[in-house]
Amino acid sequence: MKAVVARRGRLFIDDHRTDPVPGVGQVLVRTLACGICGSDLHALHHMHTMIELNARAGGKTTVDPEGEIVLGHEFCAEVLEHGPGTESRLKPGTRVVSVPYAAGPQGMELVGFSHRFPGGFGERMVLTEAMLLEVPNGLSSALAAMTEPFAVGAHAVSLARMDEHRVPLVMGCGPVGLAVIAALKSRGYGPIIACDFSPERRRIAEELGADVVLNPAQSSPFECWTSFDVPATLAEQSVAAQLGRKSKRPTIFECTGAPGVLSQMFKMAPPLTRIVVVGTCQTPESLEPGLAITKQLSLEFALAYSSDEFASVLADIAQGRINAAAALTSTVGLNEIPQAFESLRSPGAHAKIIVEPA
Amino acid sequence: MKAVVARRGRLFIDDHRTDPVPGVGQVLVRTLACGICGSDLHALHHMHTMIELNARAGGKTTVDPEGEIVLGHEFCAEVLEHGPGTESRLKPGTRVVSVPYAAGPQGMELVGFSHRFPGGFGERMVLTEAMLLEVPNGLSSALAAMTEPFAVGAHAVSLARMDEHRVPLVMGCGPVGLAVIAALKSRGYGPIIACDFSPERRRIAEELGADVVLNPAQSSPFECWTSFDVPATLAEQSVAAQLGRKSKRPTIFECTGAPGVLSQMFKMAPPLTRIVVVGTCQTPESLEPGLAITKQLSLEFALAYSSDEFASVLADIAQGRINAAAALTSTVGLNEIPQAFESLRSPGAHAKIIVEPA
Repeated sequence: MKAVVARRGRLFIDDHRTDPVPGVGQVLVRTLACGICGSDLHALHHMHTMIELNARAGGKTTVDPEGEIVLGHEFCAEVLEHGPGTESRLKPGTRVVSVPYAAGPQGMELVGFSHRFPGGFGERMVLTEAMLLEVPNGLSSALAAMTEPFAVGAHAVSLARMDEHRVPLVMGCGPVGLAVIAALKSRGYGPIIACDFSPERRRIAEELGADVVLNPAQSSPFECWTSFDVPATLAEQSVAAQLGRKSKRPTIFECTGAPGVLSQMFKMAPPLTRIVVVGTCQTPESLEPGLAITKQLSLEFALAYSSDEFASVLADIAQGRINAAAALTSTVGLNEIPQAFESLRSPGAHAKIIVEPA
Repeated sequence: MKAVVARRGRLFIDDHRTDPVPGVGQVLVRTLACGICGSDLHALHHMHTMIELNARAGGKTTVDPEGEIVLGHEFCAEVLEHGPGTESRLKPGTRVVSVPYAAGPQGMELVGFSHRFPGGFGERMVLTEAMLLEVPNGLSSALAAMTEPFAVGAHAVSLARMDEHRVPLVMGCGPVGLAVIAALKSRGYGPIIACDFSPERRRIAEELGADVVLNPAQSSPFECWTSFDVPATLAEQSVAAQLGRKSKRPTIFECTGAPGVLSQMFKMAPPLTRIVVVGTCQTPESLEPGLAITKQLSLEFALAYSSDEFASVLADIAQGRINAAAALTSTVGLNEIPQAFESLRSPGAHAKIIVEPA
């Protein structure tokens, strides 16, 4: 098959890569569409760090940082051929999406971050039959492939334990922030405040359901609370409490992944803020526990999603509750992947780029 | 009245301090017992830092760091005289406890951290009538005064959202850790693992309900998980998930307040750990968001308690569900307060010291 291969920080096109072979319970599929994720860029440029971080969390990785990998875990594909021990539940030609996990001899591996299971930047993949979800409702393959990134937003919103007293602020409107906005909107939470330096991303944020968009270069997102009836300081909180009012509380979704943002949040967030960290910042932050206690902050560090969240986001996209098309800024072929990776390094120019190998 | 006064890092005994005068809705009481809290020590030695931290959270303080304060907010008292606009609900002589808040002309103030409302290290206080709770069941004044510190534990456990899949580890068995252990025990959560360097505190932890106590000098508390069926690493978690098991998850209560402990927790805690920070560490910690995301940690920073939690802890103590007596290591008079403060600076020698002014 043809595939784009990552190795030692570089991408190259391999026109004659060996097709993967489905094992027990697995299905060979043809890639129809696959999104480029921030973590693909990270894997390409910081493979060693990524593996080392995982190892420090006690993760077992089968990835050799010097080896070749076909990245891509946000995919939609077409069933080609069933491996041994499958139920052949979905006939060849069925379009499917799936959480990107597959069982190898050493345990579960991530499809698209594995030497055994090439991802969607190649023409063929091997997926787990039990995890396949048929694409419903005639949904396009490009939009179906966006189930994965939008599921990240759904999971973050689940962790946030939102209710009608919580006012959400989404910091950063890249694909992660947009997914959070879409999940908030699809569940009826709001008003949704979103901020990003990029006017293009702010526009997409509005299309996905943000009620107010801010340019942090012009106005601090941390000064928006009073307009939304959220006590911004301990003193204001205490006044609200004395009036016997159940006051609104802020929930901030950190979706920038930028160094220093979390530490800034500790300083600037109102008391009783719940912070959901979805953007991955790789450098240590200096945080003040004393200040966090005084403000009674809470933090959730969000990663991935459950199978249920994944399935319900597919339905949300297919039935129009999530306007995935708004976040799709470009479609490219396999040959253009290296260039697309490059353009994604300057944030703000794009939201989601989808690769269509055919 | 006689009172122990804090000023500029020193304590002195004032035999002729003016009695406080009850305002509208307030009651004059005679102090029967008052616990010494870690935050009293902190207020004495770091008054400026405390006020500055509160100000950075947007708190309004009426406290002049150079002024005189009668500390003490963990009290039991006897009703002496009702001020104007009271309902005179509880007759003179009734023993009461109360959350330590009172309304002054500039808003709510903390009894025992205010120039207007002297705390329990003096013979008289002024409390808010609406907040008074009668001491039930013939409970001793010393144990009733421990409602406040035990309420801190109850609040931390509420924030922890415990269930039968959560295994609690309490780091540090000073008054805060002991309160957390008692709250866990009274609600039936466990097995409770606790650790402290002090053998005396470990013994008290056991009396209050800890099922396993560890000496961190001998064995790392972060290595205890496998004995309790908690997957300790991402790899173990993933195996549990493949076996379709709902695996146990760790909840760590940080009750040491010691610098570096939180940063150590980020490194050593198993994936899916919920960390409840109850001990106040005043120095910034260097924390890795990337590691926290990989492990999907969550953090709650706990402060104080609600009125409901306070009231239910009073009932828990009075009805023997919380063995408060186990945490009471010494009773002293007003004259001995300076010495008691001094001895509390070397941790491990004491749990709770109660002052009885009479």
